[in-house]
Amino acid sequence: MPLSPEQIREIEDQRSTPQPTLRAVSPGMEKHLYTAHEVLDHGFVRVIDYMGDDAAICQAARVSYGKGTKSVQNDEGLIRYLMRHWHSTPFEMCEIKLHVKLPVFVARQWIRHRTANVNEYSARYSILDREFYIPAPEHIAAQSVVNNQGRGATLEGEEAARVLEILKADSNRCYDNYEAMISDEGQQGLARELARMNLPANVYTQWYWKVDLHNLFHFLRLRADHHAQYEIRVYADAICNIVADWVPAAYGAFEDYRLGGANLSGRAMDCVRRMLKGEEVTQETSGMSKGEWREFEAELRG
Amino acid sequence: MPLSPEQIREIEDQRSTPQPTLRAVSPGMEKHLYTAHEVLDHGFVRVIDYMGDDAAICQAARVSYGKGTKSVQNDEGLIRYLMRHWHSTPFEMCEIKLHVKLPVFVARQWIRHRTANVNEYSARYSILDREFYIPAPEHIAAQSVVNNQGRGATLEGEEAARVLEILKADSNRCYDNYEAMISDEGQQGLARELARMNLPANVYTQWYWKVDLHNLFHFLRLRADHHAQYEIRVYADAICNIVADWVPAAYGAFEDYRLGGANLSGRAMDCVRRMLKGEEVTQETSGMSKGEWREFEAELRG
Amino acid sequence: MPLSPEQIREIEDQRSTPQPTLRAVSPGMEKHLYTAHEVLDHGFVRVIDYMGDDAAICQAARVSYGKGTKSVQNDEGLIRYLMRHWHSTPFEMCEIKLHVKLPVFVARQWIRHRTANVNEYSARYSILDREFYIPAPEHIAAQSVVNNQGRGATLEGEEAARVLEILKADSNRCYDNYEAMISDEGQQGLARELARMNLPANVYTQWYWKVDLHNLFHFLRLRADHHAQYEIRVYADAICNIVADWVPAAYGAFEDYRLGGANLSGRAMDCVRRMLKGEEVTQETSGMSKGEWREFEAELRG
Amino acid sequence: MPLSPEQIREIEDQRSTPQPTLRAVSPGMEKHLYTAHEVLDHGFVRVIDYMGDDAAICQAARVSYGKGTKSVQNDEGLIRYLMRHWHSTPFEMCEIKLHVKLPVFVARQWIRHRTANVNEYSARYSILDREFYIPAPEHIAAQSVVNNQGRGATLEGEEAARVLEILKADSNRCYDNYEAMISDEGQQGLARELARMNLPANVYTQWYWKVDLHNLFHFLRLRADHHAQYEIRVYADAICNIVADWVPAAYGAFEDYRLGGANLSGRAMDCVRRMLKGEEVTQETSGMSKGEWREFEAELRG
Repeated sequence: MPLSPEQIREIEDQRSTPQPTLRAVSPGMEKHLYTAHEVLDHGFVRVIDYMGDDAAICQAARVSYGKGTKSVQNDEGLIRYLMRHWHSTPFEMCEIKLHVKLPVFVARQWIRHRTANVNEYSARYSILDREFYIPAPEHIAAQSVVNNQGRGATLEGEEAARVLEILKADSNRCYDNYEAMISDEGQQGLARELARMNLPANVYTQWYWKVDLHNLFHFLRLRADHHAQYEIRVYADAICNIVADWVPAAYGAFEDYRLGGANLSGRAMDCVRRMLKGEEVTQETSGMSKGEWREFEAELRG
Repeated sequence: MPLSPEQIREIEDQRSTPQPTLRAVSPGMEKHLYTAHEVLDHGFVRVIDYMGDDAAICQAARVSYGKGTKSVQNDEGLIRYLMRHWHSTPFEMCEIKLHVKLPVFVARQWIRHRTANVNEYSARYSILDREFYIPAPEHIAAQSVVNNQGRGATLEGEEAARVLEILKADSNRCYDNYEAMISDEGQQGLARELARMNLPANVYTQWYWKVDLHNLFHFLRLRADHHAQYEIRVYADAICNIVADWVPAAYGAFEDYRLGGANLSGRAMDCVRRMLKGEEVTQETSGMSKGEWREFEAELRG
Repeated sequence: MPLSPEQIREIEDQRSTPQPTLRAVSPGMEKHLYTAHEVLDHGFVRVIDYMGDDAAICQAARVSYGKGTKSVQNDEGLIRYLMRHWHSTPFEMCEIKLHVKLPVFVARQWIRHRTANVNEYSARYSILDREFYIPAPEHIAAQSVVNNQGRGATLEGEEAARVLEILKADSNRCYDNYEAMISDEGQQGLARELARMNLPANVYTQWYWKVDLHNLFHFLRLRADHHAQYEIRVYADAICNIVADWVPAAYGAFEDYRLGGANLSGRAMDCVRRMLKGEEVTQETSGMSKGEWREFEAELRG
Repeated sequence: MPLSPEQIREIEDQRSTPQPTLRAVSPGMEKHLYTAHEVLDHGFVRVIDYMGDDAAICQAARVSYGKGTKSVQNDEGLIRYLMRHWHSTPFEMCEIKLHVKLPVFVARQWIRHRTANVNEYSARYSILDREFYIPAPEHIAAQSVVNNQGRGATLEGEEAARVLEILKADSNRCYDNYEAMISDEGQQGLARELARMNLPANVYTQWYWKVDLHNLFHFLRLRADHHAQYEIRVYADAICNIVADWVPAAYGAFEDYRLGGANLSGRAMDCVRRMLKGEEVTQETSGMSKGEWREFEAELRG
């Protein structure tokens, strides 16, 4: 359990004192505020703040003086239209601020999304906790043989046990030595900015991450995808659940057009048209490479 | 007066219904929400939404579980430290969304600040109003003779009258013709996306503009400066007043370190050191060009 | 013709002096350098500089010590794979710098693409030329009746003549008055930063615009699309021709996956699957709105 | 020595085949192309490509048809003017692409600069080498007692020896286990994307990093500063040397106005003015905090 009693008390304090505001309020999001949604063995995602709601997207799209929304149905139609036609600026008018605790190797993937604001816990300034990601046995997987950049079947038996043993032992030894090097008992103590280099990439870090809804959707499309590494996908999934409560209409459009949709090439669309006319199309007659054809067939199967 | 009775009613509606929230609330900012602060002859700035307050800057800097703030004095010291050392990320954790009405030639300068989100009223889709910026007589100024990129003394007498006459007449004629071209009475009516090209750059447009506090400070430093064109500076000044109420400690630090501070070159610092030792330094012995020396002397005079 | 003899001579000067370099060179691009490709009645696009070629995309994707490319076929396959799977960072490793002359209302759309570098001709500092976009008769079009944001049939006869007359007369009158206001003969002369507000949005401006290939593709996908306004689409088309010569493999992949491809929603993919199984799907049974179904049918027709 | 004979041969191949180009060429930069400048024990910086030179900055600032430069002295004056007045867009018209090899903990600081393009070596796809940063004895330093975020005196004697021993032993053990886990001899072999989590933060990674000159200067100002951690500062220093050869005038202006300059607050400028009038100003009468006064005094000493 990642939170100390003191931390829980701090969170409860924040949740106990509603204040009046004139701003747009999303009731679905208020219930998430500050609460830690657990991810992996020591991580979490929690909402620190948000700006806007579904109505705010419509209000911005219409550059309104007042609320700028019409009927719920009308607003949903507008939101779907904006999503379908890649009118991204109204979605940028919503913003979310998250506090995330995550292993460093996940943080390194995450930070590649540059259009966001980040404030990370400083290991130059502070001492990191003894918390390391150790995968659950069912997530200890072999290197994939079809995809150089992914994992295959779950490892079992002795091999899995050996992996777990190594990860735990190396994490703990590295942390013991980290502590020994920075200690100022009977010695000067190594600078923290140097000592941290001894910690492996499964150590947990944390940050405040703030992003607009359009760029968040872009992040989620790539990271909630089945090609994404499991350890970042579970964070993306947790955020998807939060966003669905925050901006239900926008999330619905995102789910239909991005997450559940398909991006077909000109060649693929040509094949679809020929198939609808009754032609038997094969990889050889499709103009696609083998890998591309395999992905295309998977899309058609759904 | 730029707002119609219906618009005022919409604004009042929004201001009349506070709702409870668990988020950070800035009392100084709540009083600004939705209200239009008039700028120039038909323009305005009004706050549509905001995220965070002074405490949120400290909370992010400390990556806190709870509020993350300590005493007011301690927090103000931290904020000044962050500003002084260019630690910009905690300031990015605050966000503001404005509705701005402004002349097109001001909008063209404004949009050069790229790290912001914008949703502009579409003149492809909608018809623009007959509203043009006509400078007040005291702002009709001559081309500067010392600064190729600025204005000099106020024009007076017949020349000023002639300028005002031209601006009004041309605006109105262009708008009459805009209306005539898009009219569908007795004709098909020109496409709006084409007709708009007949409108001069003093026509008003409007947009929703959303930006984080760090990038807003950067905008304000450049646009509230005396080198900025008067017509954008008045918008920056109006926003400064709002920000001072929103995040007083951050604005105070910004005022001291950026607006009121000076950026001295290595050569200039060298001169300061020599002068403090009692040396008489002149432009000739300073190593600076004439223009640079003039700016340096102005800094020293304050 | 937009270029003066002196400008042509400057361009020829630049084209006459090749120098040796060790950098990646794209022969297809060298032939475009500095040459002005005319667009609209007074505009142009010309390449000022570029970085990288198809091989540089592969070299970056492989983080290579040397050239990092393999066979042409292998490289093209890699480029297609990167494009298909939205691996955008290798495309960001190519960069292009253009000098563009364009009407202000086109510039206002263009600048909405924020991930680019821009240096615009300053009308605070300099005097604009008497050059205005006057559409060719076949591009004087009526407001669309099906799309609020577009144009319909070409206007003909008297109405078209009237439009042309108005655009020419207003442009010229506004420019005459612009000149009269800034003139310092017998008067002080109005500041340029003020006088420019009298010029309508069809006046030409110019800028240097620099962008990476990934963001350029994003721009081209939106602006070379048939939904884009004709006056910006012709610039996008001109740039497409240049890019096809610069990075033929990347442009080919872009054409297949983005320009010629389709983005189908989850609902649309579901319909495709049902149709391929022989079901007769109609708008009513599709789950789509009328507008969405119309767009879907258009995609299937190709 | 980080480069294998094969890598050296690849680099020499690239350096041996100049090709003609019509683009701007910087002779000072051509001599750096592809060559690895060694940094730390296994790292390097090498230039892969560049766009523009000092003249290109002036050409963009003047939005020129031709070369757009005047005399060298005139151009240098313009560049200094642009730098002094924060006209950043002309500097954005130059671009550099680097191949950098660096420890992961340095990469994590570096990536915080978001306005750049990055392609990193993928440890999901590939196997990392057994290369770890082990500080030279003179860089094994104690935690600073005055600055929570920095290092103090060099550690000596047994404590330093112990630190070196730990860093070497833990790196090697972690790498041995990384190899053992991914091995497919007699077992399936753990997925690379999982195994990498066992590697400590001093392991080397590498990337292609591309950035414009304005944002590079911002990076250098923060990272070549004495507050920056030594291990990233040496990379910044190596890049400074390269940039000085690439764009000597721009680098000179950067050195004077940014690296060697000082940013004084309003309170500090007020103190300077009082001191120049002969007043004895102390921390108590300065209005500054103790920390701020200490920094101010350091600036005045130079």
